[in-house]
Amino acid sequence: MKGFITIEGGEGAGKTTVLELLDERLTELGYDVLLTREPGGISISEQIREIILHPDHTEMEKRTEALLYAAARRQHLVQKVLPALQEGKIVLCDRFIDSSLAYQGYAREIGIDEVWMINQFAIESCMPSLTLYFDIEPEKGLKRIALNNEREKNRLDLEKLAFHKKVYKGYQLLLERFPDRMKKINAEEEMEKVTTNALHSILAHLKKEEEQ
Amino acid sequence: MKGFITIEGGEGAGKTTVLELLDERLTELGYDVLLTREPGGISISEQIREIILHPDHTEMEKRTEALLYAAARRQHLVQKVLPALQEGKIVLCDRFIDSSLAYQGYAREIGIDEVWMINQFAIESCMPSLTLYFDIEPEKGLKRIALNNEREKNRLDLEKLAFHKKVYKGYQLLLERFPDRMKKINAEEEMEKVTTNALHSILAHLKKEEEQ
Repeated sequence: MKGFITIEGGEGAGKTTVLELLDERLTELGYDVLLTREPGGISISEQIREIILHPDHTEMEKRTEALLYAAARRQHLVQKVLPALQEGKIVLCDRFIDSSLAYQGYAREIGIDEVWMINQFAIESCMPSLTLYFDIEPEKGLKRIALNNEREKNRLDLEKLAFHKKVYKGYQLLLERFPDRMKKINAEEEMEKVTTNALHSILAHLKKEEEQ
Repeated sequence: MKGFITIEGGEGAGKTTVLELLDERLTELGYDVLLTREPGGISISEQIREIILHPDHTEMEKRTEALLYAAARRQHLVQKVLPALQEGKIVLCDRFIDSSLAYQGYAREIGIDEVWMINQFAIESCMPSLTLYFDIEPEKGLKRIALNNEREKNRLDLEKLAFHKKVYKGYQLLLERFPDRMKKINAEEEMEKVTTNALHSILAHLKKEEEQ
């Protein structure tokens, strides 16, 4: 969908920091921007997310988790993303369908096609027109997180390095699968440089969309 | 799956009462029975169900609801139904996939095939081998509920008669679609007669399964 941009990447890729900078820069350039990430303050999605991330829920089956992510995605999309797009806003969304494909589909081995299917049910073809993938080696990303004491540890942060390596591999497969939609950004560089590169990709994309 | 029996029907079909009687009779006959219904005391499923039925959640989108039902179903199946079947128990489950197909797929107009798809993701081909459909005219079923003061009113009970008529139609379509698995039981008769008829269907089915 026009104006719908998602940012993807493994843990510690610096998405949150860069997204705040991108929001500022795009706003300065005159764009009306909505920066969001699921559950994004949507009550139903927030409650679903609480169930997913609760540290006690170790018995959570992986397909249950995938369905819950899809449900939270649906409600956030309908209540927050679509209304903003309809108002002509640029929506920057921190993680979307590709996170489910990489984490649940590939790393947890449900299968990318199976997770794609339930997510298509959830989003009804409301796909982002641009996805920036923040590329960083899993070891480096996890090191960044370990240094960041402010961040609260949740169930996902406790996963082993092997899992994050599989997530990384999953994203590489998605880059091959969606070459038109997904652009790789080197996220191992300084935040300022990453932000500039991401901004250039976004502006080039928006220009192309405006010309269409 | 062998020994997995589900009971379906609209509101006020008397499923709960008859199921308790069926549980007693089958146990007397020497069967090891698990009587359950989603969320069935499974913590994750219970919490999902709370989100679905909360009267404040009027903004709940129908596809979100369908995904949540599928998620609760998955967890209940994995934690409760499958372990019981593996122990050789007969599992009597009050509502299962056909409820989603009739309510969300047909009555809420998401589409039976689309709801089938996310539920197949959830259950991974663990289908019941017998489904008893308790057939009662929606008007009569709703009248029974109105007379039953003990029952707490939830969001679904507040739906209009028109909706329940669509659910009824949805079930009729499912009966046509799954003639081998689904058996119709006349639920407008006295509870004792309904129980006897249901028991006969179950015993005939179990005998057939034992012979296979």
